[in-house]
Amino acid sequence: MRPVDTLISARWVVPVVPRGAVLADHSVAVEGGRIAAVLPTALARTQFAPVRHVELPQHVLAPGLINAHAHAAMNLLRGAGDDLPLARWLNERIWPLERALVSERFVYDGTRLAAAEMLRAGITCCNDMYFFPEQAARAFAELGMRCVVGIIALEFPSAYAADADDYLRKGLAARDALRGEPLVGFSLAPHAPYTVADATLARVAMLAEELDVPVHTHVHETAAEVEESVRLHGVRPLERLDRLGLVSERLLAVHAVHLLPEEIARLAQRGASVAHCPASNLKLASGFAPTAALLGQGVKVAFGTDGAASNNRLDLFEEMRLAALLAKGAANDASALPAWQALECATMHAAGALGLSDQIGSIEVGKNADLIAVDLSGPETQPCPDVVSQLVYCAGREHVSGVWVAGDRVVADRRIMRNERQVDYEPIAASALYWQARVHAAGRASPLRVT
Amino acid sequence: MRPVDTLISARWVVPVVPRGAVLADHSVAVEGGRIAAVLPTALARTQFAPVRHVELPQHVLAPGLINAHAHAAMNLLRGAGDDLPLARWLNERIWPLERALVSERFVYDGTRLAAAEMLRAGITCCNDMYFFPEQAARAFAELGMRCVVGIIALEFPSAYAADADDYLRKGLAARDALRGEPLVGFSLAPHAPYTVADATLARVAMLAEELDVPVHTHVHETAAEVEESVRLHGVRPLERLDRLGLVSERLLAVHAVHLLPEEIARLAQRGASVAHCPASNLKLASGFAPTAALLGQGVKVAFGTDGAASNNRLDLFEEMRLAALLAKGAANDASALPAWQALECATMHAAGALGLSDQIGSIEVGKNADLIAVDLSGPETQPCPDVVSQLVYCAGREHVSGVWVAGDRVVADRRIMRNERQVDYEPIAASALYWQARVHAAGRASPLRVT
Repeated sequence: MRPVDTLISARWVVPVVPRGAVLADHSVAVEGGRIAAVLPTALARTQFAPVRHVELPQHVLAPGLINAHAHAAMNLLRGAGDDLPLARWLNERIWPLERALVSERFVYDGTRLAAAEMLRAGITCCNDMYFFPEQAARAFAELGMRCVVGIIALEFPSAYAADADDYLRKGLAARDALRGEPLVGFSLAPHAPYTVADATLARVAMLAEELDVPVHTHVHETAAEVEESVRLHGVRPLERLDRLGLVSERLLAVHAVHLLPEEIARLAQRGASVAHCPASNLKLASGFAPTAALLGQGVKVAFGTDGAASNNRLDLFEEMRLAALLAKGAANDASALPAWQALECATMHAAGALGLSDQIGSIEVGKNADLIAVDLSGPETQPCPDVVSQLVYCAGREHVSGVWVAGDRVVADRRIMRNERQVDYEPIAASALYWQARVHAAGRASPLRVT
Repeated sequence: MRPVDTLISARWVVPVVPRGAVLADHSVAVEGGRIAAVLPTALARTQFAPVRHVELPQHVLAPGLINAHAHAAMNLLRGAGDDLPLARWLNERIWPLERALVSERFVYDGTRLAAAEMLRAGITCCNDMYFFPEQAARAFAELGMRCVVGIIALEFPSAYAADADDYLRKGLAARDALRGEPLVGFSLAPHAPYTVADATLARVAMLAEELDVPVHTHVHETAAEVEESVRLHGVRPLERLDRLGLVSERLLAVHAVHLLPEEIARLAQRGASVAHCPASNLKLASGFAPTAALLGQGVKVAFGTDGAASNNRLDLFEEMRLAALLAKGAANDASALPAWQALECATMHAAGALGLSDQIGSIEVGKNADLIAVDLSGPETQPCPDVVSQLVYCAGREHVSGVWVAGDRVVADRRIMRNERQVDYEPIAASALYWQARVHAAGRASPLRVT
């Protein structure tokens, strides 16, 4: 009998790799935070002597979901500017509030709240972009959540940094400071072609090679930014990024709503990835991303929640389902983006986009034990003729009963855990209330224009 | 001190009428199944001596949501035909399975499962259309859920009825049999213009006047059915319905995806209502309904889940949020269908569409006490600067902690209740498993074509 830390025995295991597999009555053995074996439960009982044996008789065990695009700290701005056109949303609500409020504490508190929401929703890894990435990383790590935080770069000053060089310097210092954190990774995150100058983008391209990290940036979210680029630079933003050496397998292009057929082909040829954010694109009326066409050309499409100010949920079950539904509507084809593919996007495609496809994204021996248990026994998920369809089309975050990151159980029966002990939610709730009052006061100081 | 059955004291009450009101620290007094008073909690404590006092310190109390279009029994076909084009979905999956399986027992069991799902999701009333409406009504009533069941009419035979006359005869008999059930109402439900002949539609129009009930029918769901009508009848379906006297304030037109501007104007002029089913329309790639334009012209737009075979959730929180998001995307206007209006659609508009606007749809004195409590204290719904935005954009069915129908608490802490006792979920779960096996066997008998 081989000793292991944890044995998880589930009614079904959906490993995502190999594609389409649904393993009935299988177990996953976890040792040292990694997956040691995937095998029939009957066999596992004879081979493993686990310290902890978790039995999930009505559940599916799947890889943790990966949020490919978030501004986690913006959870504190949730509901602060709904139902507004994009320009008013940015100019009259989000930017003034950020100018008034963003600080180390804001980012730490907001990210901790967001991590609590995401973990309970079965998200085990978040690709984040915001000011003060060191504080974001510390909040994620504290709650035991895996993250890739962006070394953000912008040309304009903020409470965090003065100019593009300052952003990059501080981001690189954060990376150095957090080198020992096994759950924390970094990307280079130039905010967007319309907020970052050529010289900075060229430097980002060089740094990305040097540090061997992905490049996380907003691309073609709105028709207006594409037009503006043509006016200012003579080319569309993707062409500009390409000339600066940024369209490669390192690129994670967020949104990618407004794409010409040749741009889709270029993303495919270069091996770039897309972070599709369907709820945010609808809420801000940005347009309909050509998801089915991107997938058809072989582009890795991952899903992102975007920030809570434009969603307002950090819920990848919601995004998986919405992406699958919206792809059908937008492509006028009910067979577009089927359930198995939506699950693949939210796991393996995202892992690949982040350069982590050998670490996370599937239940395979040697990978990190980033796992979620989803209870399919309730009236919302019965009958259950097809486990993967049920996961994508019926289940919600509320059915996530257990979550593990690197083998540590971080959610048990909807409660947030760390090292086998329940995490106190009170300080998180209290900080949300504190910031709600601060947001309210700041909103009064710079009210919406009367139109 | 006035004795009442129940006093519910909530952090917030959102009565829906008057529009936009959010009443902090208010209470609702319930007597004889109806709302006896809505007043500040401090005052309520001095005026009422309740048998039961429910305190909801972190919750919003809102009217129960109304599902304006469902085929509840189809919960048993959930996941049986996903990701297929509409024609194959109908011809190769749904219709063969229905021919093989639909029976009194199927409808009773499926509706009971659906009612359990809907109640837990805060849906207190369902407008249903399916075979064997008497069994559907009995299942709803047994679980204490309000329903309007359709006296369904089709030209083609089924296990339920032989021809249109037989459908109508049986439906009218069901109405007579259930006259004493206070939670059960009826509509006339000719399935769709493409499945019902002129003579039957004319009879339905007459009967609707005679019985004073709404007419619940599918209208302009797909582009193909509109074209077919032009070919066969020389006019679009809505024009045909109008000539037969069916476009009136009684009409609840389900889907209404493909509408010309003059058809939107006609629906508005006649006072007809629309049941918008955004998830179903996307999943079957039916098209994008002109929701913002319909609302702009003053048409009452309610929301429906459709059946679980084309959704696959009976979850109006999901439909509210999706309708609000999709309206923005489809109208290219982020201010389209704001949160307050989405909530109004899911409550007052639906009540109006069903001819029940004096009975349900808002928290007003004299109306039925159909209420839901939504817990906003978790990390998914904090901070909470705007209660209505939180309800529509952040909250999910999982935050529904309590549900009352006509004053009876039918959900308490996510458990289904009836007359103060927990309802046994085991028989419901067992019947779902039984039908899953039957569906599986029937599916093997008529497999999908290999394409």
